[in-house]
Amino acid sequence: MLVPKASVILAAAGAGRRFYEKENPSRPEADEERVTKAFVPLAGRPVLAHTLERFAQVRAVAEVIVAVPADRVAWAGRTFGDALSSGAALRFVAGGEDRTASVAQALRASDATTELVAIHDAVRPLIRPSVIGEAFRVAMEHGAAVVGRPVDQTIKYVLDGCRAAGTVPRHGLWMAQTPQVFRREIIVRAYERREELVGGVTDDAQLVEAIGQTVMMVCGDAANLKITTPEDLRLCEALLAAGWPFGEK
Amino acid sequence: MLVPKASVILAAAGAGRRFYEKENPSRPEADEERVTKAFVPLAGRPVLAHTLERFAQVRAVAEVIVAVPADRVAWAGRTFGDALSSGAALRFVAGGEDRTASVAQALRASDATTELVAIHDAVRPLIRPSVIGEAFRVAMEHGAAVVGRPVDQTIKYVLDGCRAAGTVPRHGLWMAQTPQVFRREIIVRAYERREELVGGVTDDAQLVEAIGQTVMMVCGDAANLKITTPEDLRLCEALLAAGWPFGEK
Repeated sequence: MLVPKASVILAAAGAGRRFYEKENPSRPEADEERVTKAFVPLAGRPVLAHTLERFAQVRAVAEVIVAVPADRVAWAGRTFGDALSSGAALRFVAGGEDRTASVAQALRASDATTELVAIHDAVRPLIRPSVIGEAFRVAMEHGAAVVGRPVDQTIKYVLDGCRAAGTVPRHGLWMAQTPQVFRREIIVRAYERREELVGGVTDDAQLVEAIGQTVMMVCGDAANLKITTPEDLRLCEALLAAGWPFGEK
Repeated sequence: MLVPKASVILAAAGAGRRFYEKENPSRPEADEERVTKAFVPLAGRPVLAHTLERFAQVRAVAEVIVAVPADRVAWAGRTFGDALSSGAALRFVAGGEDRTASVAQALRASDATTELVAIHDAVRPLIRPSVIGEAFRVAMEHGAAVVGRPVDQTIKYVLDGCRAAGTVPRHGLWMAQTPQVFRREIIVRAYERREELVGGVTDDAQLVEAIGQTVMMVCGDAANLKITTPEDLRLCEALLAAGWPFGEK
């Protein structure tokens, strides 16, 4: 198979409010103290540096566009450079007011000639290159592929914050992670129509589902953690110290 | 508050079919090769030894009853002894044909004078003693407490094994872990009526919900992993090597 070309969009504009609240819950959070979680150090390097390295190992990746807070665009360019170790182009763009707006900005800035667009949380540094490759393959074949895991725990429906009101049948349920990979024309069309969707969109595949496109799940692994709290960061550091990705480069 | 007395039931009769299929998918699994996952080594000691140690650190624990495969009862008694390091009694009973039957056997063998019964997956060795204590406190107050975590990922409803058919609103959803802790009379009553429930029971709280008892959720932590695959085991080993439980004994 001819290797397709892919643009990778990393959403890294999210500020770490939850992150710092957990670390020091007694301190009211001042806006200027917020930091972008993707820039927090993980095993001595910014989380984003790890994530970029994973995508550098995937041959189809032609470019990576990172949406960062507007006031960090110049700084990020100086810090991370303009290319991955693989030679793929690396660019930083100013994110929007929420994740969807940030991805839309990055999508506009991407190379219109690539066949695939992969959207990934910058704060998931432990994505396996082989899983990225599998998602690319499935997206080429079916149009849309989402990395995830079958739900293997019981799910409770909870009212009033902590009272379990019942058990949700888990058969057929998957947790969606990222990357979420799409043929370019599909994600562009979905994003054009995103204003029509009323609230509650928590991932990009949902926009794609809304335009009637089939989305396929690709089984990733449990270590593809999203760093949202200091505990998550420690989990990732522990995994790296123990030799993750265990045999795969 | 007077410390209540608790019986702890550990479900350890499950054989590791999935565990070994993942480790060596090419080798057809012979029944005699199956091992109980709770006996697999974790950082040099059986998983169960770690789990027992966590419960030994909780003062209210008066006894631990472990349901193991019938042919391992005598061996387990010789290997793990008849008391925890705290002095709490330790006993092994033969499990039944499924998890619910095993828990029922252990429940019958438990000391009828304890106020609380905690049911825990033996293959969750990284349960924090402080979380166990909090679940005991909530169960004393409300009758039933389940340790879990709010769902923070998007959940997809999947058809035909891998086609995403839609997104499940995650607001108000929690993943249930263990321990699940109950006032004794409540869990005894729920188990007496378990035959009436038609299939699909994936946790003990569901039986308790079915008799109309309120179940409260207690927020645990992400490291309370259930070891079902070799990857999970490596995650736990990595966490222990990194100094988990990070500051708490």
